[in-house]
Amino acid sequence: MTPIELQGQAAKAAARVLAVTGTAAKNAALAEIAKSLRENTDKILAANALDMGAARESGMRESLLDRLELTAARIAAIADGVEEIITLPDPIGKVENMSTRPNGLLIGRKKVPLGVIAFIYEARPNVTVDAAALCLKSGNAVILRGGKEAFNSNLAFTELMRAALSSAGLPENAVSLITDTTRESVGELMNLVSYVDLLIPRGGAGLINHVVTNAKVPVIQTGVGNCHIYVEKTADLEMGAEIIFNAKTSRPSVCNAAETLLVDRDIAAKFLPLAKAKLDTKNTELRGCAETLKILPDATPATEEDFYAEFLDYILAVKVVGGLDEALAHIAKYGSGHSEAIVTNDYAASQRFLEDVDAAAVYVNASTRFTDGGVFGLGAELGISTQKLHARGPMGLEQLTSSKYIIYGSGQVR
Amino acid sequence: MTPIELQGQAAKAAARVLAVTGTAAKNAALAEIAKSLRENTDKILAANALDMGAARESGMRESLLDRLELTAARIAAIADGVEEIITLPDPIGKVENMSTRPNGLLIGRKKVPLGVIAFIYEARPNVTVDAAALCLKSGNAVILRGGKEAFNSNLAFTELMRAALSSAGLPENAVSLITDTTRESVGELMNLVSYVDLLIPRGGAGLINHVVTNAKVPVIQTGVGNCHIYVEKTADLEMGAEIIFNAKTSRPSVCNAAETLLVDRDIAAKFLPLAKAKLDTKNTELRGCAETLKILPDATPATEEDFYAEFLDYILAVKVVGGLDEALAHIAKYGSGHSEAIVTNDYAASQRFLEDVDAAAVYVNASTRFTDGGVFGLGAELGISTQKLHARGPMGLEQLTSSKYIIYGSGQVR
Repeated sequence: MTPIELQGQAAKAAARVLAVTGTAAKNAALAEIAKSLRENTDKILAANALDMGAARESGMRESLLDRLELTAARIAAIADGVEEIITLPDPIGKVENMSTRPNGLLIGRKKVPLGVIAFIYEARPNVTVDAAALCLKSGNAVILRGGKEAFNSNLAFTELMRAALSSAGLPENAVSLITDTTRESVGELMNLVSYVDLLIPRGGAGLINHVVTNAKVPVIQTGVGNCHIYVEKTADLEMGAEIIFNAKTSRPSVCNAAETLLVDRDIAAKFLPLAKAKLDTKNTELRGCAETLKILPDATPATEEDFYAEFLDYILAVKVVGGLDEALAHIAKYGSGHSEAIVTNDYAASQRFLEDVDAAAVYVNASTRFTDGGVFGLGAELGISTQKLHARGPMGLEQLTSSKYIIYGSGQVR
Repeated sequence: MTPIELQGQAAKAAARVLAVTGTAAKNAALAEIAKSLRENTDKILAANALDMGAARESGMRESLLDRLELTAARIAAIADGVEEIITLPDPIGKVENMSTRPNGLLIGRKKVPLGVIAFIYEARPNVTVDAAALCLKSGNAVILRGGKEAFNSNLAFTELMRAALSSAGLPENAVSLITDTTRESVGELMNLVSYVDLLIPRGGAGLINHVVTNAKVPVIQTGVGNCHIYVEKTADLEMGAEIIFNAKTSRPSVCNAAETLLVDRDIAAKFLPLAKAKLDTKNTELRGCAETLKILPDATPATEEDFYAEFLDYILAVKVVGGLDEALAHIAKYGSGHSEAIVTNDYAASQRFLEDVDAAAVYVNASTRFTDGGVFGLGAELGISTQKLHARGPMGLEQLTSSKYIIYGSGQVR
């Protein structure tokens, strides 16, 4: 067996123990993890310093360096996050629709863990702890495969978590890190059908497409967001401008940020300059269709690709449309099924937009930036699923479970 | 585009219409389908006669011929089945957990169709109608790919259903049949990522493994059942014998039939002859472990493969175990995660079996043969999922849905 197969086997064994571990014991282990992170802040900072040094040497750009860097305050916030997960309700063990059938069998559907979750992610080391804590609380073992830039930080976190699990009397293999950070380890994880019940890739579109297309283990697709704000002709224009400004510029690097503005022809001449004035304060580049360019001559001409793009930057594609039908058709064609919003004061248009748009989250008169486990009331999340199977939208604890039917009989045969 | 790609594209377009079609219109189309099947019984019988003739010529064995054959009574029963689906509640449009968040956003999770479901199945032509009716009621378009043995019957059913959809004012492409019954069409369907939201293979283990391992579209694995009956030492022996007799012999060809009997050492000498007496009435071959052979010298020695096998026949593997732990370990190693049962009168053993066994359905004191959508109160079903993601156990209407968050705002930004 390869090292990763052995790791898979160990995780599977740990998952069988976790599946029958009660809430109190899981919470005690989470408390132990939070305590250990606080007590070993210096050790974590030293490991992170190695990653930061290497990243600076390799010329990593400032925004990524910021995502990689840990501070005492950030480590404390990570520990706080673990403690928040303690307060969330345990999804495991709940029995739904338990009822006695005509033949006397008492049948219900019980929530159970998935088993072993493999999680592939990129630079941010805090994700290591968030993911492990969510998996632990939901009774799953986790195999972490972080990016090489954060390797030392991830290893420090993982070692502390494994030790904390041991002191709490749970199997340390409930959390493990893949130390091979080459492409090969991603390939091996994707095919580990005997041990991995679910693989979640989080990162760039390239990684996600590669995994979705090639994995033999079950996968949940996360995160690619080509989100639209459609300003319908009856919209409050001031509200529309605030919403597109927020959705585009409050945090352009995240998947729920807007990438395209659609605006009705009837109001385009009035609305676009209003929106531009706000977007200009953040130096946002506008890439417009031909009609947009007539109204905003400074904008860059948009290409077909611009309407498919997830810029993750201060760039916004802009298109003038003839009304709701054209907006819906545009979103159906170019959207990634993440988050879509209409700004309108027309009741029928709002209802039709909610009904017709096929996406994880559909908004009326609000920014797409709200697509998030915390905002939606799920607590922390492991990513935003953009697929339709199993989980769609933010993946909180509940989305990390499966179920089994339990049946109490008294000798029934068929 | 290939014919199958064109079919996928047409199904996708139909799915967008179905997604916003109300319950009354879907039920009217189902009623139209049932009516058409009754009115065109002769046409269906003529098509089925072609299939039966070819099957007899090719030397198909009697039990398979019986599965392929349609009669007026069977067609009436199929039409009844469609009418039963009319009476089931529509899963689409239900909104769960709708609540106002602290920022004033009103957020809920709405049930929506998956989109396009591709369904690969084997000889029984009634499945063509069952599957189409379930998909239609749950707002999904379906692409059917049945076995070549039932081709003429499937085509007749599909043509009638498409015409019925048209007369009911719904897109006929909501139901379509792949007319290429070679292996190539399975391969093409598995990779139709632009159009297929879910692929469900139903059939032998070979087909299912091939699809699960190679598909690029999302798949739900169905049906392989290596089910165990474990007779624990405190069991009512008469009840145990009735249950294993029923689970093995009431219908050996189905996935919820038992394949292995586990029995505690303390009661084996008493229980095994009792069970054998019943199983002998159906000429069931017993393949036993060494200890079994000491008690039942006529049994065949079991090989390691026998304990992994899904016999789907009057053959039963038998193993004597040292107690609950050994039984649980055996099931964890050899089971397929379908249906598992304990026969016991020990409270703690029953609870531990329900807790520890990782399968779609876990029974105390009842036959595994009850794993079925109808028995479980889901109505009709499209198969039994043995995977943990999305749906586990019988797949009824609810399991053919996805969800989306709908959010009503009043200008919120983040």
